[in-house]
Amino acid sequence: MLNVKSSTEVERIVHSAFGHLRTGVESVDLLASLGRILASDIVADQYVPTFDRSTVDGYAVRASDTFGASFAIPAILPCMDGTPIGGQPEPLISGQCQYVPTGGEIPQGADAMVMIEDVEDFGDGMRYVMSPTAPGRYISFMGDDVSPGKIVMQAGRKIRPQDIGTLAALGIQNVDVHVKPVVSILSTGDELVEIHASPENAQIRDVNTYTLSAGVTSSGAESVRYGIIKDDYSLIKASMINALRDSDMLLISGGSSVGTLDLARQVIDELVTQYEDSRVLLHGIAIKPGKPTLIASIQGKPVFGLPGHPMAAFFMFKLFVGPLIARMMGNKERHLTQNAILTINIPSNTGREELVPVRLAEGAGRLQAEPISGKSGLISILSEAGGYIRIPRDQEGLLSNTEVTVYLL
Amino acid sequence: MLNVKSSTEVERIVHSAFGHLRTGVESVDLLASLGRILASDIVADQYVPTFDRSTVDGYAVRASDTFGASFAIPAILPCMDGTPIGGQPEPLISGQCQYVPTGGEIPQGADAMVMIEDVEDFGDGMRYVMSPTAPGRYISFMGDDVSPGKIVMQAGRKIRPQDIGTLAALGIQNVDVHVKPVVSILSTGDELVEIHASPENAQIRDVNTYTLSAGVTSSGAESVRYGIIKDDYSLIKASMINALRDSDMLLISGGSSVGTLDLARQVIDELVTQYEDSRVLLHGIAIKPGKPTLIASIQGKPVFGLPGHPMAAFFMFKLFVGPLIARMMGNKERHLTQNAILTINIPSNTGREELVPVRLAEGAGRLQAEPISGKSGLISILSEAGGYIRIPRDQEGLLSNTEVTVYLL
Repeated sequence: MLNVKSSTEVERIVHSAFGHLRTGVESVDLLASLGRILASDIVADQYVPTFDRSTVDGYAVRASDTFGASFAIPAILPCMDGTPIGGQPEPLISGQCQYVPTGGEIPQGADAMVMIEDVEDFGDGMRYVMSPTAPGRYISFMGDDVSPGKIVMQAGRKIRPQDIGTLAALGIQNVDVHVKPVVSILSTGDELVEIHASPENAQIRDVNTYTLSAGVTSSGAESVRYGIIKDDYSLIKASMINALRDSDMLLISGGSSVGTLDLARQVIDELVTQYEDSRVLLHGIAIKPGKPTLIASIQGKPVFGLPGHPMAAFFMFKLFVGPLIARMMGNKERHLTQNAILTINIPSNTGREELVPVRLAEGAGRLQAEPISGKSGLISILSEAGGYIRIPRDQEGLLSNTEVTVYLL
Repeated sequence: MLNVKSSTEVERIVHSAFGHLRTGVESVDLLASLGRILASDIVADQYVPTFDRSTVDGYAVRASDTFGASFAIPAILPCMDGTPIGGQPEPLISGQCQYVPTGGEIPQGADAMVMIEDVEDFGDGMRYVMSPTAPGRYISFMGDDVSPGKIVMQAGRKIRPQDIGTLAALGIQNVDVHVKPVVSILSTGDELVEIHASPENAQIRDVNTYTLSAGVTSSGAESVRYGIIKDDYSLIKASMINALRDSDMLLISGGSSVGTLDLARQVIDELVTQYEDSRVLLHGIAIKPGKPTLIASIQGKPVFGLPGHPMAAFFMFKLFVGPLIARMMGNKERHLTQNAILTINIPSNTGREELVPVRLAEGAGRLQAEPISGKSGLISILSEAGGYIRIPRDQEGLLSNTEVTVYLL
């Protein structure tokens, strides 16, 4: 029997064993940094904007020259020549005005803008300002966006399109990001066949190599696929030693049987005694599906023995592997959730935390979560699911029409 | 003055002009299909699993042979030889049992499994079954996951890791996905300089090329960057003609001034008269920020004239360009939202729909949305924002402590 651990205990154990691991830093081209994890704080070394800018099309003035202006009694100001956009304007002469387009520089001596809609031009060289303005109005001042010394972005964030824009505004062409962890994926089991093969008798296709590889990619890491390894102690051992040498993390999914993962378990037991900084952290997790999961540290590297059932393997990936990959790059993104109304009762569970895939649909003005029933090996259920809900081990099921937290898939 | 349209009107106009556009279909390798948009329904042509499988480690039996079994009076069944995993088992002899590991094939003649925990083995060739089972128990039947003819996935979905798994289970090595639309990005404005340059006087860096290019990539399309085009009618015209020839969509962001976009507008007006299937659809959107947006159809291709302000350009992209890119690939993903509690009042707005960037933070057990104030040109605000809220044009602001829908960024 396995000495099973709760998900909270597993998180604690994984964090204490691997929470300190960080991949190195590399510098990439600005646009290539999209979706990567920022490795160091971005501290501004300049002002954005670099000058006082108008936020409207209109006239730069001294605000005091427009006080009391109205439609009946406009302030009448001689108009100086404007400046081509991008050029530096002449200083404003007191009592005059100067055309400035949106984004143009405010001339020295001006302290406000008047919108063009509030000005009449009768072609006599004067401008008739019909409404007063106030100091600072319609001006974006130098450094309003960013000033030197400001921490514009903190390390650890996943870089989004708008962050690329902010970096561009600061003139940053190369960005320090965390190197992608390399994750090796090994499938074991004599019953496994390649996906292009037609399974005979009780053979099954090697689904986990694909689900896990795509999961690794989605988590921002690099996957190395070792493919199917036959149930042979020395083959499994040789592959694991290669994978340990060439990668930062190992995912070994057993065939579907407990017996198969036992062989990997034996190899892990041997490697743990053979290498320094190695131990089995846990075997058995009180989650349905996912129970026969094993986690070890070999040479300080995380090694996950995942269930053969594709759905169980995928859930264990989502709960423990994905977050660790993110953490290895210094990233702590929250799992996206949405609240939804449960459409049917879910009966009480069996002393284990339960993960229940749900379909999401709008209904009765609320987002509704409809549990998808099925056996844990069925990968197609996860394709139907928009998310899953978690039922704690000590909770006696969930009632329909209650609000639940859906973890989006 | 612009004849401004509401966001709903804009959506309707864009949909009616471009809703029928679809990119072509290409076949890609299974793992390369991650994140792409599925182009045709996946209809299963086989059973998954391909045989009746055990979902536990234990013994295959006829359920009727275990009826009434208990700890005190076990059912005593001779045990046949097991089958290597992946092999085909001998038919079960009535009154006997046969070991089957998790995932193993159920022998002909058996109709249920007994878990190994409910069986004693005293080494006498018999198995002592201490608890009855029922027909079908612990068996995943052939086709339980997928049967021939079942639509496993519908066209238009974005392919996720678990979908890759389902496709692998069906033996699908190549997947039909929609070709990525090619989107050309042009920046116009004499005041723009490359991001590696140090802006002088009233020059500003070309932020929009980068924000929009990253946005295009995030939306699953291919971006082609034309870079900065000087405010010159024939230069703008030549670039637009090239872009129209080489891409499926054009994004032209004006410099920061209205005057600049006017030049692009003049070119668009000329091209609209010159080419068939071309017209200006709208100019002016009642959204703050984003008002001076222009949308045209030239040779049936969408052309967006976006504001020069990076934040405004980005919002217009999120609201109208991103969804159109998705639709061109047959995808209709909902914009991810989360409900949150507004931390402060937002005063009534000015007759336009307002988009307000917010910081998201956990507080008092609820997700809280804190509006980030600032002027619309400030790109760094979008880097601070986790999302934005939309205040309809006819609503008089929002009160603190009310629940709001946050569109995640």
